[in-house]
Amino acid sequence: MKENILISEIFGPTVQGEGPLVGRPTVFVRTGGCDYRCAWCDTLYAVLPEHRNEWVLMTPAEIERRIDELAGNDPVLVTVSGGNPALQPLAPLIKLGHAKGHKFALETQGSVSSPWFAELDWLILSPKPPSSHMTTDWDALDVCVSIGKQGPRCVLKIVVFDDIDYSYARTVSARHPALPIYLQVGNPAPLKQAARPLPDEAEIDDLLARFRWLVGKVTADHWFTATVLPQLHVLAWGNRRGF
Amino acid sequence: MKENILISEIFGPTVQGEGPLVGRPTVFVRTGGCDYRCAWCDTLYAVLPEHRNEWVLMTPAEIERRIDELAGNDPVLVTVSGGNPALQPLAPLIKLGHAKGHKFALETQGSVSSPWFAELDWLILSPKPPSSHMTTDWDALDVCVSIGKQGPRCVLKIVVFDDIDYSYARTVSARHPALPIYLQVGNPAPLKQAARPLPDEAEIDDLLARFRWLVGKVTADHWFTATVLPQLHVLAWGNRRGF
Repeated sequence: MKENILISEIFGPTVQGEGPLVGRPTVFVRTGGCDYRCAWCDTLYAVLPEHRNEWVLMTPAEIERRIDELAGNDPVLVTVSGGNPALQPLAPLIKLGHAKGHKFALETQGSVSSPWFAELDWLILSPKPPSSHMTTDWDALDVCVSIGKQGPRCVLKIVVFDDIDYSYARTVSARHPALPIYLQVGNPAPLKQAARPLPDEAEIDDLLARFRWLVGKVTADHWFTATVLPQLHVLAWGNRRGF
Repeated sequence: MKENILISEIFGPTVQGEGPLVGRPTVFVRTGGCDYRCAWCDTLYAVLPEHRNEWVLMTPAEIERRIDELAGNDPVLVTVSGGNPALQPLAPLIKLGHAKGHKFALETQGSVSSPWFAELDWLILSPKPPSSHMTTDWDALDVCVSIGKQGPRCVLKIVVFDDIDYSYARTVSARHPALPIYLQVGNPAPLKQAARPLPDEAEIDDLLARFRWLVGKVTADHWFTATVLPQLHVLAWGNRRGF
C-alpha cells in the first residue's frame, strides 16, 4: 500500500528534548529507514536495513489511533522523526491528526523534500555537519526551505561537536539568514561505542562541558541570533530509548 | 534623579537559562530591590536592603552604554531581572535600547505593573507559588497581563517544587488560558543553606530527578500546553553568579 508508513516506534507522551520545542509535551512517531548513515547516529535501530524486521507498516488511521491512545484523546504535539521521515507518505496522517486537533513537527536532514512539508506546523531542518561524515546536498536543502516557507514555522537545527561543525553551522545560517537557528550539543556516546544498545547512562559532565564550550563560541563571536541547547532528554534519561 | 535605575549587576553575554528564551544569547541587567522575600530566592544580593550599598544608581544612557560594551555594539537580547525590575523606571532605557536594535525581555512576579510593560518585546510573568511563602495579588497580576497583551509576547513562568506548587501553576494557567505557560524546576540550594554565597556546585542528580518528576506530572495529567524546563544555567554553571 502506497499510503502505508514504515514505523520504527511510537512513544510518549514525554517532552521534546531538543530544538525550538524543547520542554514541550509530545508524542514521538519515529519512522524507519534513512538515506543517511551519520557517524554518531543515536537511532541506528530506525536507520539500518538489518532492523527492518523490527519496523511495521501502519496505515495513517492506525498511527492516528495510537497517538490518540497515548494522549488519551487530547490534542497533542506530534513529533515525527526517524530515520528520515521525509521518505514516508505523511500527508494523510497530518490531515487526520489535524482533524483531531494535533499539531505536527517534522525533523529531517533536508536531503529529501515533499510537498506535504507545507502542511506541517513545524519543519525542523537539521542538515548534518562534517562530523557526521555526510555531505550536504545544498540544492535539496534549498528546496526544503522554500517549501517550509509556505506554511510551517521553519527552523534550522545543527548538531555541533567541534570547530568544524560550528563553521558549518555558520555557513548554513548565512545561506538562510531568515531562519532561526538552534545549535545542539553533540552526544559522543554513539561514537565511543559501536555496539548497541548504548550505555543507559549519559556522561553528564562531558555534555555540560560541551554546552559551556558552545555557549562560549557563540557569545565570543557575538552570534546573538543563534540559540544554544543541550539534549535535555539525554541529560534527564541518558541514552535510553523511549524518552 | 527620578530617571535613574537602581542596578545590582549587569553581565553577559551568556545564554538565558530559563523560560521561553532558553538558550538565547543575552545580556542580563539585574535591578536592585524587591517587594518579595521568596523563601528560596537565589538572588538575595539583589533583594535585601542590607545589600543596598552594593547597588548603583545608573542613568538609562549609562546602562545602555554598558550593554553596548558587553555586546560589542551588536544588537542583543537584554534580559531585565531582579529583584523586581517593575519597581524601576525602565521606559527610557527600553527606548534607548530599541534605537540601538536591542530587544528587551522583562522577568517579574506580577505584583507591580507599569505602563511601559507594553513597550517590551517579552514580558515574562512569574507569580510565586506557595513554596515561596509569598501571597499572590491576583488583581495586580491581572493588570500586568492586561498591559502585557498590548504589545510584548507575554508568558507565564512558574517555579514548581512540589504538588502544591503544581496545583498553583494549574490555577494560574486556568485564570489566563491564553498565555503560554512554562513550568520551571525549583532549585532547592537556597533552602538548604541560609548562608551566602551558595555552594558553587549544583546538585545535578537532584535537579534532573525533579525535572523527571515534573515531566511525569504534566504528561500524566495530559497538560500538553505547558512547557517543562530545568534551569540550564544552574546545570551548566551551578549556583555561581554571573551566568
